[in-house]
Amino acid sequence: MRDVSIAGVGHTPFGRSDRSLLELVEEAADGALRTASPAVDGGGGGGAGGIDAVVVGVMAPTGTLGEAHITSKVMDHLGLPPRPAIRVESGPATGAAALHAGAWAVASGAHDTVLVVTAEKLSHLGSREASGVLARIATAEERTLGLTMPGMTALLARAYMHRWGATPADLADVAVKAHEHASRNPLAHLRGRVTREQVLAAPMVADPLRRHNCAPLSDGAVAVVLTSRSGSRVRLAGMGAATDRVRYQDRRVVDGFPATHPAVKSALKMARVATTDVDVVETHDAFSNLEWSNIEDLGLMAPGEALAAFRRGDTGLSGPLPVNPSGGLTAKGHPVGATGLGEVAEVFWQLAGEARGRQVDDARLGLAHSIGGFGASVFVTVLEAA
Amino acid sequence: MRDVSIAGVGHTPFGRSDRSLLELVEEAADGALRTASPAVDGGGGGGAGGIDAVVVGVMAPTGTLGEAHITSKVMDHLGLPPRPAIRVESGPATGAAALHAGAWAVASGAHDTVLVVTAEKLSHLGSREASGVLARIATAEERTLGLTMPGMTALLARAYMHRWGATPADLADVAVKAHEHASRNPLAHLRGRVTREQVLAAPMVADPLRRHNCAPLSDGAVAVVLTSRSGSRVRLAGMGAATDRVRYQDRRVVDGFPATHPAVKSALKMARVATTDVDVVETHDAFSNLEWSNIEDLGLMAPGEALAAFRRGDTGLSGPLPVNPSGGLTAKGHPVGATGLGEVAEVFWQLAGEARGRQVDDARLGLAHSIGGFGASVFVTVLEAA
Repeated sequence: MRDVSIAGVGHTPFGRSDRSLLELVEEAADGALRTASPAVDGGGGGGAGGIDAVVVGVMAPTGTLGEAHITSKVMDHLGLPPRPAIRVESGPATGAAALHAGAWAVASGAHDTVLVVTAEKLSHLGSREASGVLARIATAEERTLGLTMPGMTALLARAYMHRWGATPADLADVAVKAHEHASRNPLAHLRGRVTREQVLAAPMVADPLRRHNCAPLSDGAVAVVLTSRSGSRVRLAGMGAATDRVRYQDRRVVDGFPATHPAVKSALKMARVATTDVDVVETHDAFSNLEWSNIEDLGLMAPGEALAAFRRGDTGLSGPLPVNPSGGLTAKGHPVGATGLGEVAEVFWQLAGEARGRQVDDARLGLAHSIGGFGASVFVTVLEAA
Repeated sequence: MRDVSIAGVGHTPFGRSDRSLLELVEEAADGALRTASPAVDGGGGGGAGGIDAVVVGVMAPTGTLGEAHITSKVMDHLGLPPRPAIRVESGPATGAAALHAGAWAVASGAHDTVLVVTAEKLSHLGSREASGVLARIATAEERTLGLTMPGMTALLARAYMHRWGATPADLADVAVKAHEHASRNPLAHLRGRVTREQVLAAPMVADPLRRHNCAPLSDGAVAVVLTSRSGSRVRLAGMGAATDRVRYQDRRVVDGFPATHPAVKSALKMARVATTDVDVVETHDAFSNLEWSNIEDLGLMAPGEALAAFRRGDTGLSGPLPVNPSGGLTAKGHPVGATGLGEVAEVFWQLAGEARGRQVDDARLGLAHSIGGFGASVFVTVLEAA
């Protein structure tokens, strides 16, 4: 397998935007090409001359925009024909899945330099309509039962909290940390800090998850340039993915997502590193409690230890294992198709020393963890400073 | 790049089916695994033991079935977790795009054996509703103008016919040939032969395209097993893809699809063969006239020569360049997300000597040509008998 590096990253602010999906895509792609130009030849000055192919990641263009074959519209808007292009989708892990497919294209030798561009546009829909689109991720049986993503995650949160003794105040404190990190991130959707008291006084979404414990519906786009050429600062060292039974009720584990286990195992093996080598983590905390269970599912902490570590501040920006320096999904935001690649962008910046205001010290190896559906598909990406 | 072979193929009949998308997927996947078992170890007896990862191709699960993250539901139904899986989509070229992404995964060394499974379910929708789903492939401007796929292709057909002197009888004769081929294919949707007179008496869909000149709305699924292991009878020798401006009005060429040129050039270069080496072709004839322009766009005949060659019978089963021995989209059928992989399956059978009743003599090298949207994305795949 050829080495694959990330040559450039582009990232719109996450949040409510008046711009169209295609305009968001354009900003992200331009950013990735501009920052990549020294590493990928042929273009110069941020042009697309060095790009050989494109992978597009959008989760729900039909549900949100009434558009099919969105790849053709993205390519046309970006002026990128005649380059080959495909769309990759894996629910809310779409951004990570698109990255992995783009890396296959480069690693195989099929293409030397690939633009991966991911996006979602949700805010033009009312929250009821947007939730209806997202509810299609669940199965028909779950929808019939009224089991939404917040509802299922509330069950998982209760199981975890019961088992390990986490309190509502602990759950509020995860949101406090996330929003504090996001306040340092100019690209985050929710940049205001919150207190434990504010979180505990906020409306309940699905008991025990309150408003600040739940990711907002965001618009946004993220792009990266992947290349086999040397000269990039960050290497895509490992990739792993796995799936699980789609319905929560068909699984034996109720307080976490077991598909994370084989995914992280594969990614670490490919990168030839151990969990103890990881300096910084971005994990898919669509709801606050998932920060705990994900870190344990990733093997970065033993079962039940994430809570104690969180209480000690170990997962803060200056702790031994900073988790979600970006603010994570709950505060940075969650433009579903772009979210997974947004995590990778944050890890890239941390390893490149460009995470101004929220930089983790001496970060050399980072891990991004993205989840599609209710733990039905998981993608783990390991990046390493070159 | 590692060599990639097709170890097995599964293919449901195309046509109206009472079965669900997941049931169709199951039949195709089972067929691919059963025929692959000697080449991919670990499974034995048609099991999935040798499969390392899955690529799913469905074009419009949200528009047709109201389902998102269809990959998770396909994996669960097939009992394939915890294997990694992604979905690939490229409009009506989805099946070919999924094959190419699966081949990247194998060629890169990320996975040794990949199941690519593609499907679409359309017949449960009324034709008006199904057409509404498919109309989303066009741009909003085109939809406003009422420019549907049949409408745009009728314009292209008129341009081609005017330029090269094709008559309505010629156009009818393409449908006669397609239906004759399909009558020999037990998997085809429309197996009844038709006469020129019957075609010319059939209802006009979009002048000059009559009912038999237009692909039906089909249900169906196709799967293949791709592997780096030796022992397969057919090698995936070349892949190429390209895109074009999405709107017909933004292109300079009106009587063909120029994106085919770079796609076929790349595929032949990778396979290290010339157009004259091609023994059999499956091309995306969603409408009869496209058989002519596609063959010319592929460089298999000079501009304008496809018509004369067709009149001479050169593209029939026993001609020098058999085109669409399966019956093609107009007669074999068009379950959009599965269509591109269905072409590949037919070329596989032709090269393996298994195309009973429609076998092309001495076929060693075959080409499959799939189109997404109105020529906005094109995928070319070259297969070679091992």
